[in-house]
Amino acid sequence: MELIHEHNQQKSTRHAAAFDYIAGELTQRGVNIEALIAQIQAFQVAIPSWALGTGGTRFGRFPIGGEPRNLEEKIEDVGLLHALNCSSNSISLHIPWDIPRDPAALQQLLAVLGLTIDSVNSNTFQDQPGQALSYKFGSLAHTDAATRAQAVAHNVECIRHGVALDSKVLTVWLADGSNFPGQQHFRRAWQRTAEALGEIYQALPDDWSMLIEYKPYEPHFYSMVVPDWGTSWAFCQYLGEKAQVLVDLGHHLPNTNIEQIVARLMHFGRLGGFHFNGSMYGDDDLTTGSIKPYQFFLIFNELVDAMQDPTVKNPPLAWMIDASHNTKDPLEDLLQSVNNILVTYTKALLVDRAQLQAAQESNDVVAAEELLRDVFALDVRPLVAEATRRAGGAIDPIGVFRTANIRQHLIKERGQNSVATGL
Amino acid sequence: MELIHEHNQQKSTRHAAAFDYIAGELTQRGVNIEALIAQIQAFQVAIPSWALGTGGTRFGRFPIGGEPRNLEEKIEDVGLLHALNCSSNSISLHIPWDIPRDPAALQQLLAVLGLTIDSVNSNTFQDQPGQALSYKFGSLAHTDAATRAQAVAHNVECIRHGVALDSKVLTVWLADGSNFPGQQHFRRAWQRTAEALGEIYQALPDDWSMLIEYKPYEPHFYSMVVPDWGTSWAFCQYLGEKAQVLVDLGHHLPNTNIEQIVARLMHFGRLGGFHFNGSMYGDDDLTTGSIKPYQFFLIFNELVDAMQDPTVKNPPLAWMIDASHNTKDPLEDLLQSVNNILVTYTKALLVDRAQLQAAQESNDVVAAEELLRDVFALDVRPLVAEATRRAGGAIDPIGVFRTANIRQHLIKERGQNSVATGL
Amino acid sequence: MELIHEHNQQKSTRHAAAFDYIAGELTQRGVNIEALIAQIQAFQVAIPSWALGTGGTRFGRFPIGGEPRNLEEKIEDVGLLHALNCSSNSISLHIPWDIPRDPAALQQLLAVLGLTIDSVNSNTFQDQPGQALSYKFGSLAHTDAATRAQAVAHNVECIRHGVALDSKVLTVWLADGSNFPGQQHFRRAWQRTAEALGEIYQALPDDWSMLIEYKPYEPHFYSMVVPDWGTSWAFCQYLGEKAQVLVDLGHHLPNTNIEQIVARLMHFGRLGGFHFNGSMYGDDDLTTGSIKPYQFFLIFNELVDAMQDPTVKNPPLAWMIDASHNTKDPLEDLLQSVNNILVTYTKALLVDRAQLQAAQESNDVVAAEELLRDVFALDVRPLVAEATRRAGGAIDPIGVFRTANIRQHLIKERGQNSVATGL
Amino acid sequence: MELIHEHNQQKSTRHAAAFDYIAGELTQRGVNIEALIAQIQAFQVAIPSWALGTGGTRFGRFPIGGEPRNLEEKIEDVGLLHALNCSSNSISLHIPWDIPRDPAALQQLLAVLGLTIDSVNSNTFQDQPGQALSYKFGSLAHTDAATRAQAVAHNVECIRHGVALDSKVLTVWLADGSNFPGQQHFRRAWQRTAEALGEIYQALPDDWSMLIEYKPYEPHFYSMVVPDWGTSWAFCQYLGEKAQVLVDLGHHLPNTNIEQIVARLMHFGRLGGFHFNGSMYGDDDLTTGSIKPYQFFLIFNELVDAMQDPTVKNPPLAWMIDASHNTKDPLEDLLQSVNNILVTYTKALLVDRAQLQAAQESNDVVAAEELLRDVFALDVRPLVAEATRRAGGAIDPIGVFRTANIRQHLIKERGQNSVATGL
Repeated sequence: MELIHEHNQQKSTRHAAAFDYIAGELTQRGVNIEALIAQIQAFQVAIPSWALGTGGTRFGRFPIGGEPRNLEEKIEDVGLLHALNCSSNSISLHIPWDIPRDPAALQQLLAVLGLTIDSVNSNTFQDQPGQALSYKFGSLAHTDAATRAQAVAHNVECIRHGVALDSKVLTVWLADGSNFPGQQHFRRAWQRTAEALGEIYQALPDDWSMLIEYKPYEPHFYSMVVPDWGTSWAFCQYLGEKAQVLVDLGHHLPNTNIEQIVARLMHFGRLGGFHFNGSMYGDDDLTTGSIKPYQFFLIFNELVDAMQDPTVKNPPLAWMIDASHNTKDPLEDLLQSVNNILVTYTKALLVDRAQLQAAQESNDVVAAEELLRDVFALDVRPLVAEATRRAGGAIDPIGVFRTANIRQHLIKERGQNSVATGL
Repeated sequence: MELIHEHNQQKSTRHAAAFDYIAGELTQRGVNIEALIAQIQAFQVAIPSWALGTGGTRFGRFPIGGEPRNLEEKIEDVGLLHALNCSSNSISLHIPWDIPRDPAALQQLLAVLGLTIDSVNSNTFQDQPGQALSYKFGSLAHTDAATRAQAVAHNVECIRHGVALDSKVLTVWLADGSNFPGQQHFRRAWQRTAEALGEIYQALPDDWSMLIEYKPYEPHFYSMVVPDWGTSWAFCQYLGEKAQVLVDLGHHLPNTNIEQIVARLMHFGRLGGFHFNGSMYGDDDLTTGSIKPYQFFLIFNELVDAMQDPTVKNPPLAWMIDASHNTKDPLEDLLQSVNNILVTYTKALLVDRAQLQAAQESNDVVAAEELLRDVFALDVRPLVAEATRRAGGAIDPIGVFRTANIRQHLIKERGQNSVATGL
Repeated sequence: MELIHEHNQQKSTRHAAAFDYIAGELTQRGVNIEALIAQIQAFQVAIPSWALGTGGTRFGRFPIGGEPRNLEEKIEDVGLLHALNCSSNSISLHIPWDIPRDPAALQQLLAVLGLTIDSVNSNTFQDQPGQALSYKFGSLAHTDAATRAQAVAHNVECIRHGVALDSKVLTVWLADGSNFPGQQHFRRAWQRTAEALGEIYQALPDDWSMLIEYKPYEPHFYSMVVPDWGTSWAFCQYLGEKAQVLVDLGHHLPNTNIEQIVARLMHFGRLGGFHFNGSMYGDDDLTTGSIKPYQFFLIFNELVDAMQDPTVKNPPLAWMIDASHNTKDPLEDLLQSVNNILVTYTKALLVDRAQLQAAQESNDVVAAEELLRDVFALDVRPLVAEATRRAGGAIDPIGVFRTANIRQHLIKERGQNSVATGL
Repeated sequence: MELIHEHNQQKSTRHAAAFDYIAGELTQRGVNIEALIAQIQAFQVAIPSWALGTGGTRFGRFPIGGEPRNLEEKIEDVGLLHALNCSSNSISLHIPWDIPRDPAALQQLLAVLGLTIDSVNSNTFQDQPGQALSYKFGSLAHTDAATRAQAVAHNVECIRHGVALDSKVLTVWLADGSNFPGQQHFRRAWQRTAEALGEIYQALPDDWSMLIEYKPYEPHFYSMVVPDWGTSWAFCQYLGEKAQVLVDLGHHLPNTNIEQIVARLMHFGRLGGFHFNGSMYGDDDLTTGSIKPYQFFLIFNELVDAMQDPTVKNPPLAWMIDASHNTKDPLEDLLQSVNNILVTYTKALLVDRAQLQAAQESNDVVAAEELLRDVFALDVRPLVAEATRRAGGAIDPIGVFRTANIRQHLIKERGQNSVATGL
């Protein structure tokens, strides 16, 4: 874009100085800057279709206007993000909100924008108009076999849509659970779910993965069928190699050491993907990295550590944002999120793993900790900006977004009261 | 009702035996059964208009059908509950969901059903159609003076509606807060809120109370302007004697000792009212007493202890349910809730306070604890059933509700897809 | 004991009336009272040797006097408890605090008192005087092979002591972890631990079980090697059939649904045992059932449900108390704990599982919940008292303990400043 | 010290480059670097005498050797820290652990090392040998008047010791509370405590402050007499102007927004001081800034914001570390903590408050957040190092500590098994 170029020009002096400083500092430490930039450029995060509009709580929703009214407009929004940051080249779909009507046309649109379809996400936590059987009391875990069959069929349909768009991942977030003690029989609910997942698994193409997400509460407030990583992992073991655990950062009880869970799952070869977001209390769905950036770094530190370790037999990970933007402009929020992810990934790449291991092996606690703290304290933002700039994106994506009045253009085009499908 | 009488007849033998046993046991302990029954009968809990329909989460809502379509039908539903349990003789209104169009006619309807209006509740957490200024970024705490003025005016209007219906209580639950660090200036937000509350307070009739509710998170996920009892209390001190703190059982951080907060506030003479519900994770809005019945008993123990202590200068309390029924029939849920409240209140009345004090003063930990545990272990349900029976209600209210197929009648009358106003 | 008999005589009238009432009520419901009493009598809970003295926190310890000074006196204390409640016929040992010097003499003492040795518990969370290598930075997970070997040898020695006393269970609570990010490499720590556990497992007799306990934090405050049930279960799968998960009620993050974990583990056939205690914030080690008695009932409900289900292939469970008595007389606390366990177990036995299943299958949430709530509300204490009385124990064990001035006798015998070994 | 100079020489090139870069960057933003460095140099943090030795948990303690054996050696250790970082010029005392035997000699030692005495801390959470009455069941809240009087007298004695050493602050951390429901009467316990605090307050010199600390749990696990800021504030209001709230970072329930509490208390003019430490689960007493550095920055942001606002009438704050070092060398841990405090304080000083206010007033959420995030992302460590260097301290204090083999020297001098008084 012309605008991006112009904007980069304005920022170029300050950016170059900042980049030169950190590049020099890291070169002194032995870092290969060009290789590092290539790694940053290669990192791509999927944008969820449902995060392109204003989210809300059960208490209300305050739309911003200009929200995408259909799948095509959602893809256009992701295209815009990717043009700005060159790091969000795919989109996660939610079925039935994003059922493609013309897959061939969509494929063409995606190709033009340099995008692909990431995962397809099934939805059995709501009843759709005209749906034969209700999910009020569950879907894959429902006591009624016909309701379970309906939910299985929906997931199989999701796979079918995904195949048409070259997706390779089915994400199953199961909202089933109970609100009151006694409501659900825990063991039977587990078994019903396992068997229903097994039927979906049968329909999974060989080159696909099925990601099983866990969440301790909400929308149910006494129990969830898949409340923790242990249960997700149990289902994966039941199903087979193509089933893996998906970690969503906001789906943990207070004080959970998430980085350790990540390390465990990779040690077991069963971490399939990530839902990035920020959380202070629960499934807050805030901007990634906005609340606990150091924990986020520690999580990435585990990811990179395991990805660089040839003894770890974990499949490649699906990197996805899963957020809901109640307050901010959704597109600005996503630009912030992707930037925070890249900055944090960059820091994780900079950890000197040999030195860290040496400190750990000798139980030099202060030295080991300071190795991580030192990298976290570095201001590596210019490295990410440079990687994006070289790839054709903006040094300051949000700056361009604002300067170009993009939200105002979208409102003019789509209306003040447009509502993203599914919201 | 005929039905209630008939039902009570069927249950009478078993009920009488159970009542006789516990009455005999307690008489041996020196309890005056008749006085106890009178106290149980005198205890009345307000039903919130918004809990008469099916609630939901941000993920979905699964209506049950037959929900009240307007304020009159809501009042009829409360009348039904009160006919069954003789313990829910008032209704809390939510403005603008429940703006009375014809107060005189409403008053007549209320009189026929033996009901009164409890508190009026303002709503500045949503934008209403046609509203001039948005509450997206706050109401009483908003940075914009005009928006604050609009929110003040709305609260004053709530008082006006309440006056017309003989309410004496304004409940202010302030959803204002922030989702991200930096978004809101804490000190200025407090001061703006204090001053706006001050304006509302000026409009409060002398015989009214203003209850200030606190909540740590949701709908905002970084900070709330009134997150804890200390902040509510600070506002009350700023405002004056008519302002009091409202405790909602689901509005606390994990592991909070709520009973101690209740005792503190009564010691300071500032506990104004209660929102009963059940909670495992946060503002779950479950059936009162469904998750932590012992903690609920300990809370009531503090309430009764302070109410019986002449040195405590606390105003009479407003007893209200505040719940949201996502899974159960809302009316059944409310019958359960009221019953749990009565049973728990009864137990609290049975605590021997002289003996408890003696054990406490001598630090006989086991004796003090066992005094409470013993009362909690007693099966006092027959006492509550007897109190209700004598007052003309049902020994088993849910049993009558089911036998009489009331939900089916309501669906026939109001339709399968009726939605309660405000939901 | 003479005293017990005398005491029971005094209580007999009131007790008989209470028992007759609840027995009659339950008989009407179809319960076989004699069979129920036999089940209650058969339930035995192991007493941990380390709970017989006054516990403490890192801030201080306030001993009560008369604490057992050696293993023999600990066994005598358990004998006393068992004489009073006929339900605590075994003792858990902690090595090296309770190394038996003369196993044959101990066996004789145990036989006289009707006791057995339950589990042996290894201790690698402290350094013992003269110990060659320190556990400051870990034991089975230590980076140093010699330290791991020392910890393995200690566990093998525990097994040896246990074999001499006819124990069949080794409990491994691993305190290893880290206080700071970076200190420990998560994946390598897991692997080292797995291999060290594997060596211990090799030394385990065929008829033994190895129970692996988990705990999210303390004594380390950033990470624990075995923080959650998923990790315990992972180790069990690595080790083999004789390895099972041990659930300690106080070892969970805030708001954890423990009953669901219990159900999961039994469904997988991997729940080996239980550490009973009470908890409000963390590993508080309070009296069992003192804080969340309803959750405790829901946990027992899952245990009984699975134990009664022939399709569940879970080994028999080890029932153990694990508590620390900072405030109460340790023996009174244990009597309370065992009584709470028996009362709760009795209630779980009374749940009508066919009716519950019917309500669950039809998604009648209120009916299912009320089935559990109804049983919980019953006052079944007279059933437990009767079971104990018939077995030769006291209707009111604490009453006898106090009437007989047992603590005073112990202080006279053992001194005011005796300290239980290991405390 | 010669060593510091030598060490700084070695580091000078790299340090100068790093300092020049960030100084240049900030100068471009309009920051006055010299003024900033002066502010950093002026910031001094008190070291607690009890953090100079190895801490421990109830499960064990692993001493490092060379720990100070008396108050003089503790002061020497603080002198060493201050020589290295020029930012820890005072020491907090714990009575009776640190009762000065020869105040005049101590004063001289302090003067030589450039130190002062910060606060005196009373201890009524342990029984001392020969103490007349036990604090097992409380001190200022005890039901027994004589025990309360003893605790009051102890606090008055602390003031007396403090006066002799020119301290101006009494810190009261009250461990009183209860382990079981019923044990303590909440309202009476509050009142007894208020009156006992009132007696201590009477003995407080006019130029002193009394800081009242709160803590939700531990050493008691059901209730604490001062569990939250609201209760501390209530006591302060009861007592008078010289009483203020002390915030300890580890004394909050999960997910508490501590920065908001800080802002509240300063708005009310009642924040008296701070206990710095790091926490993941509770009162973990880890290195300050080691777990949630961004939250720590947000807390400092509120502190600086209020300190710079002339409308805020809050007294000067007492900055103190309160930590317990179980794993690291205590002196290294304290050097890390002070450094983290200085780095974070520096960042808070860099926030552009006019711009932040503008973004807040216009509800530009992203802009407001990014202002904070930008400052947090800056690598300001060279500014702190330069401030220390110019003041005569070390660019890398831990580096000097290690190079100089200080721990080995201390062990040689004081022995491998020395134990700091009070630990």
